[in-house]
Amino acid sequence: MRQRKKHWAEKELNTNEFLIRNPEDIKGRWSEEFNNDNDIYLEIGCGKGRFIIQNAIKYPDINFIALERQSQVIITGLRYVRENTDIKNIRFINSDVKEIENIFSSGEIKRLYINFCDPWENKKKWAKRRLTHKNFLDLYKKIFSEKGEIYFKTDNRKLFEFSLNEFCSDNWRLKNISLDLHNSDYEGNIMTEYEQKFSSKQMPIYRLEAYYDKK
Amino acid sequence: MRQRKKHWAEKELNTNEFLIRNPEDIKGRWSEEFNNDNDIYLEIGCGKGRFIIQNAIKYPDINFIALERQSQVIITGLRYVRENTDIKNIRFINSDVKEIENIFSSGEIKRLYINFCDPWENKKKWAKRRLTHKNFLDLYKKIFSEKGEIYFKTDNRKLFEFSLNEFCSDNWRLKNISLDLHNSDYEGNIMTEYEQKFSSKQMPIYRLEAYYDKK
Repeated sequence: MRQRKKHWAEKELNTNEFLIRNPEDIKGRWSEEFNNDNDIYLEIGCGKGRFIIQNAIKYPDINFIALERQSQVIITGLRYVRENTDIKNIRFINSDVKEIENIFSSGEIKRLYINFCDPWENKKKWAKRRLTHKNFLDLYKKIFSEKGEIYFKTDNRKLFEFSLNEFCSDNWRLKNISLDLHNSDYEGNIMTEYEQKFSSKQMPIYRLEAYYDKK
Repeated sequence: MRQRKKHWAEKELNTNEFLIRNPEDIKGRWSEEFNNDNDIYLEIGCGKGRFIIQNAIKYPDINFIALERQSQVIITGLRYVRENTDIKNIRFINSDVKEIENIFSSGEIKRLYINFCDPWENKKKWAKRRLTHKNFLDLYKKIFSEKGEIYFKTDNRKLFEFSLNEFCSDNWRLKNISLDLHNSDYEGNIMTEYEQKFSSKQMPIYRLEAYYDKK
């Protein structure tokens, strides 16, 4: 059943112009792909794409790339963009986060979004799989220039606590930390599908901005 | 009634050898007061003193000073120390936090403890009264050497969020951030009276360590 779904998804993926099929081939030339020099923001794990599509609509002078490794999920966003928008500033990549250093050159990405990633709760064993683990922070630096920024949201308190400590111990500068985003002063929040579901249950959403400066 | 209470408290205060009656006179000479060169840690707002007394018992090679402006409250700790311990490494000061620059010289205090201070919830109007406001952080630096550290605990989520942002924007380095201290890996926590009460109600306790380095 899983196989059949995947087959169906791949067929549709192959005909959607917003999906970059061989992203490694564009490494170092993403500005050409967008045909402008605007900043490029990347979302790691975009799911069905609500967050990044709404961002792309709201900020036409930014280029957005949505990375998602599950083809059955990414297809929803791809379909939505083709059928419901006329935006040009978004691309999708069906790949794993570990591939980003093969897909982007140093300096090509200005900002990363990480939203509601898997918390890998069994902390001792799985900490290295969390997308805010020091190893991943080092990976992200490879696609930033000397400066970079990460906007991070989660509903998982333990993951947020872990992330605060990882960022701080790696000397990132934190701003706009929120322990209850939907009851805060922060304006202009764009919700993911997952966030919409959780906020209606009155669960607090945690958010931070982390800034890296090599100098 | 209030006046009578205060009168009673002051009478007992005047006869307790652990209370420093004119702390301004000792400015620059606190090591002499303790008769050793051990580090001095200061708690701002010690309440009834459980936290700092237990610390003083546990760490005899550190000198502890407990600051509390309410004489009716500080008396409890003073009485406890005299009647139940034989420790020499603790002193009490019945004064306001704003006086600390008149009480300590630069470099006399190595670490500050701030536990469960008033959150001043009406944020716009009262933010400057919070003990982790930028203005207070600047005040604390006056009694630190080039380096200083603050250990901070609260049960108030908004105050903790505010404090995270104040420390970060003022370039303090944060460590051991906990969003649920009593369900964390942190060992050796000494509870305040207030914390004992709240933890039994399963309210999460927030904690952080903030490090300042002038260089």
